[in-house]
Amino acid sequence: MRDAVLSMLLDNLGNFVSGEDISRQLGITRAAVWKYIRLLQSEGYLIESSTKKGYCLRQVPDILDEVLLTRGLNTSILGRNVEIHSSIGSTNARAKELALSGAREGTVVIADEQVQGRGRLGRSWVSPPGKGIWMSVILRPRLSSQQVPRITIMTAVAVANALKRSAQIDVGIKWPNDVVCGGKKLCGILTEVHAEPEVIHYAVVGIGLNVNLSFEDLPEDIRDIATSLRIEKGKEFNRADIIKSILQEMEKGYLQGLRDDGFAGLLKEYERRSVILGKRIRVIGVDGQFSGYAQGFGLDGSLMLRLDDGRVERILAGDVSLRGENGYV
Amino acid sequence: MRDAVLSMLLDNLGNFVSGEDISRQLGITRAAVWKYIRLLQSEGYLIESSTKKGYCLRQVPDILDEVLLTRGLNTSILGRNVEIHSSIGSTNARAKELALSGAREGTVVIADEQVQGRGRLGRSWVSPPGKGIWMSVILRPRLSSQQVPRITIMTAVAVANALKRSAQIDVGIKWPNDVVCGGKKLCGILTEVHAEPEVIHYAVVGIGLNVNLSFEDLPEDIRDIATSLRIEKGKEFNRADIIKSILQEMEKGYLQGLRDDGFAGLLKEYERRSVILGKRIRVIGVDGQFSGYAQGFGLDGSLMLRLDDGRVERILAGDVSLRGENGYV
Repeated sequence: MRDAVLSMLLDNLGNFVSGEDISRQLGITRAAVWKYIRLLQSEGYLIESSTKKGYCLRQVPDILDEVLLTRGLNTSILGRNVEIHSSIGSTNARAKELALSGAREGTVVIADEQVQGRGRLGRSWVSPPGKGIWMSVILRPRLSSQQVPRITIMTAVAVANALKRSAQIDVGIKWPNDVVCGGKKLCGILTEVHAEPEVIHYAVVGIGLNVNLSFEDLPEDIRDIATSLRIEKGKEFNRADIIKSILQEMEKGYLQGLRDDGFAGLLKEYERRSVILGKRIRVIGVDGQFSGYAQGFGLDGSLMLRLDDGRVERILAGDVSLRGENGYV
Repeated sequence: MRDAVLSMLLDNLGNFVSGEDISRQLGITRAAVWKYIRLLQSEGYLIESSTKKGYCLRQVPDILDEVLLTRGLNTSILGRNVEIHSSIGSTNARAKELALSGAREGTVVIADEQVQGRGRLGRSWVSPPGKGIWMSVILRPRLSSQQVPRITIMTAVAVANALKRSAQIDVGIKWPNDVVCGGKKLCGILTEVHAEPEVIHYAVVGIGLNVNLSFEDLPEDIRDIATSLRIEKGKEFNRADIIKSILQEMEKGYLQGLRDDGFAGLLKEYERRSVILGKRIRVIGVDGQFSGYAQGFGLDGSLMLRLDDGRVERILAGDVSLRGENGYV
């Protein structure tokens, strides 16, 4: 019923709805309406009340609320099922549990805070409460295990497009899985799959996006290499709006870009956003260190690196830094 | 203590050991020795007893006994930790549980019977009690998710080499994951992984090998396409010997063949055993049906198929049948 009251207020955002209208439409007493208004106010919703005119929702707080997250979400698969946690170890770990027990594709796990947030290769990921988007999406794509990198590439492009649309910010992509801005990391993507060689049973895509973190919110040792939307744009953003935007862009990529006939186009978008393409870089790969010129990306998601001796090395995975510079990218 | 008594008898297989020797060496009473002899006899060990000469192990039964499985096993990683079940749903499912909870690499799960044995892509696999090798091996290879097919290729070659050595039988390999004999399936391999794009967290390799199944043990609907060692060679085999042989060959492949500098050599062995290379085949792939000439295999485990119009299609996964024939291969 709380959700129904909230929905009515949202339908009339900035305008008054009379207590009587709410009471009649939802079939509850005026006293009950008042109870829910108080509840919503305690959660942070700025609601003006007037004995004559009724209630007016003035401002929506930046909280993870299922109504806010799903309202106006224009997807058919992603985010149709959402699990919200105020605090959790890691959204990827929870999403893997759900996937294993048969959760349908598109299920999303979101948390206000992660206490054991993880990045690629088991690295830690700082996810303080209320300041970022820490979420994981369960996918069941028709891909083989060789095509797993497509999922990360698709997600990076989706995040970039979503940030352009919902935060008016132009971001770059650093192969293989980082979304960057001004040479610093804004968002990390962590893809984990369970697969047979020829078919993925499920994939869990974790997205960690620094939204409203201030410079001080960032641990000292990563201030040189990390940033947030707030730091870059000088203002705060509503996380629910950005989440919806990401889910919408991801669904587009999921339905088209992952497929054989769509991936080449997706890779072009990825290349257009790449901050390393055409630059001299150093890659610390699984099989050693390589320095060279980032020449392009393979259809399998690999990086084609032209070494100084002219050979082209196909690199499946690794960490990248711009050669000769000390910055993160 | 049972294991210690059994070990002493095995050390003197075919020869008498006096009850007094056993009693003294193990520090137990003569009555206790007799109790363990009775126990072993009840399990199927053929032990002759003589008041004068003592005990003589005449014949080792074909049972899954940890002593038999690990005795003389010449490996440093694979099979150093073994879990034996008389009946289980599926060894792969159990091995995945163990892998997730941190089981060390090389851990092996073996069962006398699987009641929910599974093959590739969720297909069922018949695993009647006591007649075959139904086992799963936990690996933690340093590979990216694109390299998962290497694991199946490595295992297929290991099984082929092991069967040559321990059962004196020449088998073929049908891409991607079947070991075949006389045009029929003898063994299936099911690889499942949990991975990030650039690193495999763990892999579980399931091996289902028909050892002592008679023609009648095979369900009617697969008699045309499946076979067993017993059917092919007209005699029964000791499963423990074959298991040890497989683990030894797999370890060789695991330590050398999976690596970048070893895989090309491994792929050559795979090609030498291939029953489709150089033949006209039909592939029912994930992305459709293809007919053509099996031209070779890629370093990523894909099949290069020359289509009738001359194009070469790189096929990541699929089911293969010889074109124009009705047989399984």
